[in-house]
Amino acid sequence: VELISSTRNPRVIAAAELHQARRRRETGRTLLEGPHLLAEAVAAGAHIDVVFALDPTELDEFGGTITGDIVPVTEAVLGRLAGTEHPRGPIAVLAVAPPEALRARDTIVLVDIADPGNAGTIIRTAAAFGFQVAVAGSTVDPWAPKVLRAAAGGHFRTQVSTLGDPLAELAECGIAPLALMPGEHARLELLHTDGPVALLVGSEAHGLRADLVARADGRVTLPMPGRIESLNAAVAAAIAMYERVRPVV
Amino acid sequence: VELISSTRNPRVIAAAELHQARRRRETGRTLLEGPHLLAEAVAAGAHIDVVFALDPTELDEFGGTITGDIVPVTEAVLGRLAGTEHPRGPIAVLAVAPPEALRARDTIVLVDIADPGNAGTIIRTAAAFGFQVAVAGSTVDPWAPKVLRAAAGGHFRTQVSTLGDPLAELAECGIAPLALMPGEHARLELLHTDGPVALLVGSEAHGLRADLVARADGRVTLPMPGRIESLNAAVAAAIAMYERVRPVV
Repeated sequence: VELISSTRNPRVIAAAELHQARRRRETGRTLLEGPHLLAEAVAAGAHIDVVFALDPTELDEFGGTITGDIVPVTEAVLGRLAGTEHPRGPIAVLAVAPPEALRARDTIVLVDIADPGNAGTIIRTAAAFGFQVAVAGSTVDPWAPKVLRAAAGGHFRTQVSTLGDPLAELAECGIAPLALMPGEHARLELLHTDGPVALLVGSEAHGLRADLVARADGRVTLPMPGRIESLNAAVAAAIAMYERVRPVV
Repeated sequence: VELISSTRNPRVIAAAELHQARRRRETGRTLLEGPHLLAEAVAAGAHIDVVFALDPTELDEFGGTITGDIVPVTEAVLGRLAGTEHPRGPIAVLAVAPPEALRARDTIVLVDIADPGNAGTIIRTAAAFGFQVAVAGSTVDPWAPKVLRAAAGGHFRTQVSTLGDPLAELAECGIAPLALMPGEHARLELLHTDGPVALLVGSEAHGLRADLVARADGRVTLPMPGRIESLNAAVAAAIAMYERVRPVV
C-alpha cells in the first residue's frame, strides 16, 4: 500500500470526520489511537477497516490478525487524524459492534454523563469490577475517541449497551435500579442484596434526574467523613462498584 | 476601579503568566476560575490579590470579604486569563498559603502524578474522606489552575504539603507508608491497622517507583474480579482511601 502524504486524501478526510459524533453514528465507525487500544480491539475480534501508521513494521507484532489495510502515512497526516497533541499512532478506523442486549448482571448506568474522561474512566472501572455498562440520557457517545482513550481498553472487556428507557429495560432483565446520590447519611445496604443491581450515576453538574430517583428501588449514598460533600462522578461510581464486589473482611 | 479592556494591560499580562508553573513558583500566586472556587478560597480565609469579573455586581454576595481589588474586564480580557474555552469568570489571583507541616494523620501521597485532572480528583477525594495530601517526585504543581478546577474546592478543605524525601518525612511524623500497587491478589489488611497510614500512589504510566515500594511498610492491592488489571490512578487512590474509612458492615 502506498504512503499517504496529503491531508486531503479522501480516506484521511473520511477518517478525520469520525471525530464528529454525527459521522460516527452515520457510519458505525470510530477512531482508535495508540498501539494499546488497537491491541485490545484486535484481541476482542473487532473489525478494523484501516490502520494509519508512521511505520507499518510496528504492526508486525499483530502477525496478520488485523482485518483491514495497513497504510503508511506522514506525520502531517497522522496529526490531522489524531485527537492528541503529539500523536505517535497507529490510528485505526474501527467498526463499532452492534449494541448488545442487557444481561441479568450487575450494571453501571451512565445517565447524562457529559465528560468523556469520566465516561471512559467509568467504563474502565466497570470492566475491572465485572459490571456491564449502559448509557442513557444525554451521556456522551461511549465510542467517542476520547472516551475510548480514557477507558484504556475497557470497552473490549465488558459490554456497553444503550438504553432509551433505562428503568423499563432494567426491569425487563430483572435488574434492580439503585440511585447513586450524595447525602448526609451513608446508605450502602442495597448494594449487598442478592440478584443483579444497576447503579444509576447522574450528571456531573446536576446529579441524577429526579424522575429516575423517584422510580428507582432505592438510594445508595457513600459515607464522606471529611469536609467535601460530593465526589467526582467517576470516583463515586467506582467506589459504589467496589463496595458491591469487595471481599468481606 | 476602571474597566480593563486591553489584553496588554500589565495586571492582565502578569495574571495570565500564572498559567506557567515557573511564574507561580516565583510569585507564590495562582489563578482561580469560577465563583465556586472563589467562594471556597474566601471561606477558607485565603488572600486574594485581585478578582477580574465581567460583572462585579456578581461579587456582591461576598459582602466585602474578598481581600483584593475587584476589577471589571471585557470578554476579551477574561478570555486571555482563562484556561477554559467559554469562561464566565470571575478569575482571581490567589496567594498560595505557605506549605504546612505534615500532621500525624492519614495521608495520600501523590508520587509522579502527571495529569492535572487526576491530581485534582485525588485532592477532592482526600478532602471528602478526611485525608491530608502530600505531593512528591515529579507530580504536577498541585496549585496549577487545572488541578484547582478538578479538585472543586478540595484544596481549601484539607491540607496540601510537599515532600522532598517522602519516606523520611512520613517516618518523622509516625505515619506508616503503604505502597498502592496493582496485582493479582488483593491485599487490604494494612489499611485496617491502627495509627496513621500514608498511601503512596505512583505515576499513571509507570506506577510507583521501585525504591519507594521496597522501602514502604507494605503493599496495598485492590481486588479486581473483572477483566482489566489496572485502574485509573485517581480511582485506585479513591478506593483505597474509601476502604480505609468505610463503615464496617
